[in-house]
Amino acid sequence: MNYADHQLGIYLQGMFADQKPAITTDLAALEHAAATVLAPEALGYITPSAGSGATAAANRAAFDRWRIVPRMLRGSAQRDLSTTVLGTAMPAPVMIAPVGIQTLAHPDGELATARAAAALGLTYVHSTQSAHSFEQVAEASGDGARWYQLYWPTDPDVCVSFLERAKAGGYTTLVVTLDTTLLGYRPRDLDRGFLPFLHNVGIANYLTDPAFLAKLAKPVDEDPRAATLHWAQMFPNPGLSWADLPFLREHWDGPIVLKGICAVDDARLAADHGMDGIVVSNHGGRQVDGAAGSLDVLPGIAEAVGDRLTILFDSGVRTGSDVFKALALGAQAVLIGRPFLYGLALAGQAGVDHVLRCLLAELDLTLALSGYGTHRDLTPEALLPT
Amino acid sequence: MNYADHQLGIYLQGMFADQKPAITTDLAALEHAAATVLAPEALGYITPSAGSGATAAANRAAFDRWRIVPRMLRGSAQRDLSTTVLGTAMPAPVMIAPVGIQTLAHPDGELATARAAAALGLTYVHSTQSAHSFEQVAEASGDGARWYQLYWPTDPDVCVSFLERAKAGGYTTLVVTLDTTLLGYRPRDLDRGFLPFLHNVGIANYLTDPAFLAKLAKPVDEDPRAATLHWAQMFPNPGLSWADLPFLREHWDGPIVLKGICAVDDARLAADHGMDGIVVSNHGGRQVDGAAGSLDVLPGIAEAVGDRLTILFDSGVRTGSDVFKALALGAQAVLIGRPFLYGLALAGQAGVDHVLRCLLAELDLTLALSGYGTHRDLTPEALLPT
Amino acid sequence: MNYADHQLGIYLQGMFADQKPAITTDLAALEHAAATVLAPEALGYITPSAGSGATAAANRAAFDRWRIVPRMLRGSAQRDLSTTVLGTAMPAPVMIAPVGIQTLAHPDGELATARAAAALGLTYVHSTQSAHSFEQVAEASGDGARWYQLYWPTDPDVCVSFLERAKAGGYTTLVVTLDTTLLGYRPRDLDRGFLPFLHNVGIANYLTDPAFLAKLAKPVDEDPRAATLHWAQMFPNPGLSWADLPFLREHWDGPIVLKGICAVDDARLAADHGMDGIVVSNHGGRQVDGAAGSLDVLPGIAEAVGDRLTILFDSGVRTGSDVFKALALGAQAVLIGRPFLYGLALAGQAGVDHVLRCLLAELDLTLALSGYGTHRDLTPEALLPT
Amino acid sequence: MNYADHQLGIYLQGMFADQKPAITTDLAALEHAAATVLAPEALGYITPSAGSGATAAANRAAFDRWRIVPRMLRGSAQRDLSTTVLGTAMPAPVMIAPVGIQTLAHPDGELATARAAAALGLTYVHSTQSAHSFEQVAEASGDGARWYQLYWPTDPDVCVSFLERAKAGGYTTLVVTLDTTLLGYRPRDLDRGFLPFLHNVGIANYLTDPAFLAKLAKPVDEDPRAATLHWAQMFPNPGLSWADLPFLREHWDGPIVLKGICAVDDARLAADHGMDGIVVSNHGGRQVDGAAGSLDVLPGIAEAVGDRLTILFDSGVRTGSDVFKALALGAQAVLIGRPFLYGLALAGQAGVDHVLRCLLAELDLTLALSGYGTHRDLTPEALLPT
Repeated sequence: MNYADHQLGIYLQGMFADQKPAITTDLAALEHAAATVLAPEALGYITPSAGSGATAAANRAAFDRWRIVPRMLRGSAQRDLSTTVLGTAMPAPVMIAPVGIQTLAHPDGELATARAAAALGLTYVHSTQSAHSFEQVAEASGDGARWYQLYWPTDPDVCVSFLERAKAGGYTTLVVTLDTTLLGYRPRDLDRGFLPFLHNVGIANYLTDPAFLAKLAKPVDEDPRAATLHWAQMFPNPGLSWADLPFLREHWDGPIVLKGICAVDDARLAADHGMDGIVVSNHGGRQVDGAAGSLDVLPGIAEAVGDRLTILFDSGVRTGSDVFKALALGAQAVLIGRPFLYGLALAGQAGVDHVLRCLLAELDLTLALSGYGTHRDLTPEALLPT
Repeated sequence: MNYADHQLGIYLQGMFADQKPAITTDLAALEHAAATVLAPEALGYITPSAGSGATAAANRAAFDRWRIVPRMLRGSAQRDLSTTVLGTAMPAPVMIAPVGIQTLAHPDGELATARAAAALGLTYVHSTQSAHSFEQVAEASGDGARWYQLYWPTDPDVCVSFLERAKAGGYTTLVVTLDTTLLGYRPRDLDRGFLPFLHNVGIANYLTDPAFLAKLAKPVDEDPRAATLHWAQMFPNPGLSWADLPFLREHWDGPIVLKGICAVDDARLAADHGMDGIVVSNHGGRQVDGAAGSLDVLPGIAEAVGDRLTILFDSGVRTGSDVFKALALGAQAVLIGRPFLYGLALAGQAGVDHVLRCLLAELDLTLALSGYGTHRDLTPEALLPT
Repeated sequence: MNYADHQLGIYLQGMFADQKPAITTDLAALEHAAATVLAPEALGYITPSAGSGATAAANRAAFDRWRIVPRMLRGSAQRDLSTTVLGTAMPAPVMIAPVGIQTLAHPDGELATARAAAALGLTYVHSTQSAHSFEQVAEASGDGARWYQLYWPTDPDVCVSFLERAKAGGYTTLVVTLDTTLLGYRPRDLDRGFLPFLHNVGIANYLTDPAFLAKLAKPVDEDPRAATLHWAQMFPNPGLSWADLPFLREHWDGPIVLKGICAVDDARLAADHGMDGIVVSNHGGRQVDGAAGSLDVLPGIAEAVGDRLTILFDSGVRTGSDVFKALALGAQAVLIGRPFLYGLALAGQAGVDHVLRCLLAELDLTLALSGYGTHRDLTPEALLPT
Repeated sequence: MNYADHQLGIYLQGMFADQKPAITTDLAALEHAAATVLAPEALGYITPSAGSGATAAANRAAFDRWRIVPRMLRGSAQRDLSTTVLGTAMPAPVMIAPVGIQTLAHPDGELATARAAAALGLTYVHSTQSAHSFEQVAEASGDGARWYQLYWPTDPDVCVSFLERAKAGGYTTLVVTLDTTLLGYRPRDLDRGFLPFLHNVGIANYLTDPAFLAKLAKPVDEDPRAATLHWAQMFPNPGLSWADLPFLREHWDGPIVLKGICAVDDARLAADHGMDGIVVSNHGGRQVDGAAGSLDVLPGIAEAVGDRLTILFDSGVRTGSDVFKALALGAQAVLIGRPFLYGLALAGQAGVDHVLRCLLAELDLTLALSGYGTHRDLTPEALLPT
């Protein structure tokens, strides 16, 4: 597939149909555009990172420290961006990050995103904290590839039930988020006293779960507050340790990926514990203020465990050029979060589609213009540190 | 104590009581908030640093140069932030810095802060330049731990009297500030011709001191100007030298801490002279313009004398993440200044309480999310320099 | 020629004729000035760089990293800025970059620029994507030196025809642009759905070309859209490779320069393939977002192939001081792009003349004040890295 | 003399007389304040630096790269800032830089500044391009120390006459400015077509010079334009070389200082040619755009020739803290330019006095608070590079 053609398509539509894109094509401007349509609570929940925002700034600064050195005359007329990650075939090394509560951005929420991803063949990662359930998302996703992201609850029954529902719903790989055993310190939400889950938004997987419901004294609609509080007791899980991982293997026979790895030693531990992959991530800066930029820790991790683990990446990715850099520094695929969410806010499924097409077009163009017929040839040599 | 619970408490209050925090939870935004309620002279005295403000900027830049690398799956459900510093038990490695003239921020001044600190179990450090006396603050502090900060006056009788009153008032450790033997060059105050002490504000300890009063020809209320001038003659003491320290040992039998150490060689001299501890500090940037960021000099000092002295830290600390970094780089506890003062300005004792709880919550969350069950395990390995 | 005299001339005109320059002399302010007169589509096409603009920022940051160290008392009353580049005599090491579609800036377009260049003796480089044809520009250029820049079309007949017309028109050196085998991702144009070529603007060379016209079913004015689409099929050429270069040698007997070189290895390949020169360039940041600053890669390339190839430079040059730096780091001449285009927008030929005179005056002054009688003595020793 | 007392004086005046300083004490804010009173042409001439302003920015950035590390308890009650530079006794290592045409700032021009300097005992350096003559300034300066700065004219008769008048006027040291053999490229003046000298402002030394007048066909008031043009022919002197220096020695028997040295090799040449001192300076950024920050080149020069030459410094100095840094990095005294000129603009002689007192107070306080009893003990060890 030639993603770059999307650009010419826009120009031709401009010329022949006098039509402009309904949403900006400037991927770095999407946040600003989305801010004009999002409700204040939604904007406050989606956009900021933890504390003073230093980690989000570090994520961006890390990208600025690496510069692409394009190569010329390497015959890159055909690009092949396809790849296979942990058995999942992908037309491009780009995945939909497991963003929760997408109804904050748009009423269609996860369903719109899953449909857009499936239409493009991209893998959708379903968040435990979704506003739609495993089953609803699976139906929307249809034949599309999908993985499941676990926030590991303290109740093992619910955990096992989640894994079983994921399997039944065709989610093939398990992504375990480690960096959010407690919520980060988020002043904009705190200043509003606003946590969406406490309004029973974004806990659809729980409210449809037999194991969860079994622990409630009354049906949810009779005592919604009790359901909320039950969730609030089950979600925090800072006691998790490496010794808990065999429990997952016992209940999940597909690949397991640990998300939230920032330290080289943790990447090694993941390999030592038989994990299949990791996502190098600081949760888009939403958890620990003052943390290292995610891209700043990627090269060391790739060097240490690149031959033992599948390495995925997120946090701070905004453009196709960013994806190029993360791939060059050792990621096998990149998860996109806020950009698609801004597209969702602006135009639902069509907005997600627009953002993903633009990002893939820019990635494809960056590869072509930098002399790469496939992203699989990228190495750190493609970049210059500054 | 689980400081992180404060965060969930705010959310629950938002949901069940529809209440928002009265003061922002954004610790980096407190200065802006306080600026809306402080009188211009108070704002001009409290907020700026010396000269062009370069030292305050350096303090913040120093924090940005170190980045937290969170560790995963280390079973940090229970955190123990308690510590003992020079014999004083502390529930968390956070102390109230010896800020003077707190009535500039709020009529209750030091009394409100001392009460808030005592309620949280945090150690209060009483400034020589307070608007309330040793005795008043001791009463407000009650069972709370308290230390005394000395601006060493040129009159030895007053100095001895201060030390005796401190002992009598239950102040257990002596903190000697070395960096303010003269006032720094502060344009905003100079432009107003405003020095609060010259209005007999912030010299309560003197005006209640027998040794001080004995030197005045008339009672203070009969000739307040003479009292002011007498203070103004006694305060500057740039002739102090290492040879003067035995005088303190003679008149103080508790631990002695030197505050304002920036040079490794001075830290060594402090140890050589038998001091118990130091505060690595540039006085929040208020004394020398163009000075090194306080955190920039901490690691070298910790390496040089960490095994001989108790090392405390202040200057530029705004958030729990900042506290984490200072502890990781060798401080055993951190003194908080302007943030609590902004809380005081915004809501008196309740404001101080709010700020301290937020800061402790963020510190606790940062430890938990970074994989530390106690701050005592922090080392520079927890950070990545950039 | 003493370019510095232009400065005194302005002052004398101010004094004796009470006349101010019609256009600012602040070369860094030209973009702002031009923005006030350009149509939005023109401004959106001319000014921005690709994607998020990071490459344009990198171009400027690269200049800031090198600082001139002026030398004193070196007797630089007379400066000789003349040089010969690939057989073309030049009064100064400054050339007119091959900017396309100059009618976006001013109705006179390339003709005005070619005239201004010829009047100053500077070499004009004719872009394949011009709004005026080879022949029109050659006539305007008259006795002026001129080179030809090729966007290598996929149709070899058209390519050969272009080369023959260039030769016939007195264009002496061939500059082959390698970095634009596809258009970069340019959000401002995309957001407008605006690509000037699709309106048959900027493809004058094609529309006057027998080989091009021969492939059209109808005359252009009968079916302009077909001509556009034919161009759009012929322009993209990402399949080009080093193996194609002999084709050019076969059809061009003058010097050949490869434009768009950023990697040291590509510079070596250019030499290995018998090229005469290269232009170190990232196309003014218009092609790959997040690419290395052009000046950042110049020193390494100059060191590697400076003895085998003529090295030219562009991207980010705004002032005479910038030209000085690029020459010191190994360029034999520098191509100026946007600055002259802004002059063109502001006042047609007179505007181009004004900008070039100012830039040459500043270059000459910088040489004189830095102790250089000729730019040919410049080495990296003239600069201090920061 | 205890310069720090000036600070307490301001506070006491505020308290007892309810008087605020008429001019801000914020030395970094003077430019902003002066901008409100200066005529546009004057502001445009005085404030900007050459070209894009990059050199002025580099001057300031250089100061930010060095940070003071205050030392404690060093008994600095008494400070001795006095020094002797090339035989001139100075109460502090601060001199008045040879700023030209001071009537642009205030009608009293150089006379006001010379009086203020003399009153404080600071050495005044008289610019060749002054609005008042040698003799007028000498009279205003009275018993004050004064040096003479030469812009070496191409007419040797005028040069010799200047030197003789300087000697006769009690100017004891000759400062030869090397960096302005041509005027730098200054867009703000060019955009106005404004060069004050062409209006016979700032050439008082010439218009009162017998050797200059002798070359004019008519008296100045009969043909002022001819005088202007004669000046304009005589001023530029880019042909000057090291071989010309013996001419100065022949006609000047006092110390000679070369001003405008930025390169270590030029500093060595100055020593080799028997000069007495140098001023490390880039003319406040007014000559070469994109040049190295003046403080960035000071340490290397001090290391190379500190034992052979007296080293003075200017460019970018705004505060007492800046002076401290330059002294620590090897300067024996520092020349102050724009700050006093802003004071002059704001309040004539009283304004100059105010600025100098503030700057000296801050310098004195910085020494005291950093543990130095005299600036002569400063070494690079007092600073931390960042």
